[in-house]
Amino acid sequence: MGSRRFLPPVLLLLLLSVIASAAASQSLLRMISENQASGDSDGLYCDSWRLSEETNNAGYWGTIPARCLQFVAEYMNGDRYALDSDVVAAESLAFAQTVQVAGDGNDVWIFDVDETLLSNLPYYAVNGYGSEEFNETTFDEWLNLAKAPALPASLRLYEELLGLGFQIILLTGRVEAERNATEKNLSFAGYHSWTRLILREASDIGKTAVAYKSEKRAQLEAQGHRIHGNSGDQWSDLLGSPMATRSFKLPNPMYYIQ
Amino acid sequence: MGSRRFLPPVLLLLLLSVIASAAASQSLLRMISENQASGDSDGLYCDSWRLSEETNNAGYWGTIPARCLQFVAEYMNGDRYALDSDVVAAESLAFAQTVQVAGDGNDVWIFDVDETLLSNLPYYAVNGYGSEEFNETTFDEWLNLAKAPALPASLRLYEELLGLGFQIILLTGRVEAERNATEKNLSFAGYHSWTRLILREASDIGKTAVAYKSEKRAQLEAQGHRIHGNSGDQWSDLLGSPMATRSFKLPNPMYYIQ
Repeated sequence: MGSRRFLPPVLLLLLLSVIASAAASQSLLRMISENQASGDSDGLYCDSWRLSEETNNAGYWGTIPARCLQFVAEYMNGDRYALDSDVVAAESLAFAQTVQVAGDGNDVWIFDVDETLLSNLPYYAVNGYGSEEFNETTFDEWLNLAKAPALPASLRLYEELLGLGFQIILLTGRVEAERNATEKNLSFAGYHSWTRLILREASDIGKTAVAYKSEKRAQLEAQGHRIHGNSGDQWSDLLGSPMATRSFKLPNPMYYIQ
Repeated sequence: MGSRRFLPPVLLLLLLSVIASAAASQSLLRMISENQASGDSDGLYCDSWRLSEETNNAGYWGTIPARCLQFVAEYMNGDRYALDSDVVAAESLAFAQTVQVAGDGNDVWIFDVDETLLSNLPYYAVNGYGSEEFNETTFDEWLNLAKAPALPASLRLYEELLGLGFQIILLTGRVEAERNATEKNLSFAGYHSWTRLILREASDIGKTAVAYKSEKRAQLEAQGHRIHGNSGDQWSDLLGSPMATRSFKLPNPMYYIQ
């Protein structure tokens, strides 16, 4: 488990005194979000923060709030992350079962890869659960090990969708150079029989995830595919035009991709 | 702070054994969503259900899950609804403060009315917190009383946005016949100085909320307005083209409007 950082008491007192003096003149709303006294209120605040990032209210954020490190660690390792993921998968399947699959190979379900099919929790558990700036070097080392486990709920959903006759298309922000490691990891985790694995080509580098993924969905539709479902842990997997008939947001309180 | 519920060990073992025996033959995913053992597990399940409806994963739902009645009642009356609303308002304001307001009267913030500016909690508290089918007759009686209180976080945000120079446009699914009662109620709750209150006209009846509200946003943009923010408790307040620069989803686990 990564290092846990807490404010030393002296620094905390200093912070509180700054807050107290600023409170009279500053916005109450900003106070609530940024400067609320720490301690037992952290859990309540962090639960609200998690809802806000899951609903995309928080907008872009670089690292998790410092006071929420313990909360995020407990969430990711406890029953709640697993059950939240189970419920998303159950709702995805309930919708999938209402789709008339034509059998012409054009009924598509899109999955993102990281934190959707594969879990990088073993990496983030030793790298601060999103409390540290993203380190491309160490993450690439982890990626190339190709040992990320499946998210259990997603693997079960994936199998069910194959059984219903959907074509599975994987659409990831990973780059072409990572194709081999990605395919190896997906197989290691138990995935098989996908129709296509789409990664960023040279021409996609620098595009936002929303732009890149929307373009790819538009191309798929232009090729005659009907995109019924889209599963991703980032709003940038799901938003933008065209959207799938139904989009499913998997939980991820560790990082945000624009 | 709301009580945190954990599964007693015996129940957990029972649940695990049921899951294990059923996993081989049945869809585990359906089991989790529909047949999970009731009792203390309700809190954990209902928390996941609430996340799923707040993220729009649940899609359309008519009434809340029966097992979640107590959960929803406690959520709405406890600290969590208030704090979740505070955090949304704080994030809305943080974004609003980054907007360059031109002073030409075209910098707009859109608010929905019910469960966004006004709280109908006094009505739902005596009508099952979303566990009963919507009753238009009794709701209209409540609406015409014009006594719904403000959501405190929204009222504070509203005042801050006026102070920043935004034009406030109210866009509601209520109909023109309810204009007087709506204006009276907004004033009663402390709101003032809005630029326009847009209600459904005869030609809007029968449209989905997404279609109606998207059309109105398109008209506003065609008139030269820049829609920076949009606050609503329903995804149908926020989704559809065009969208605001930033959309803010307020919590509402009591009902879903398409």
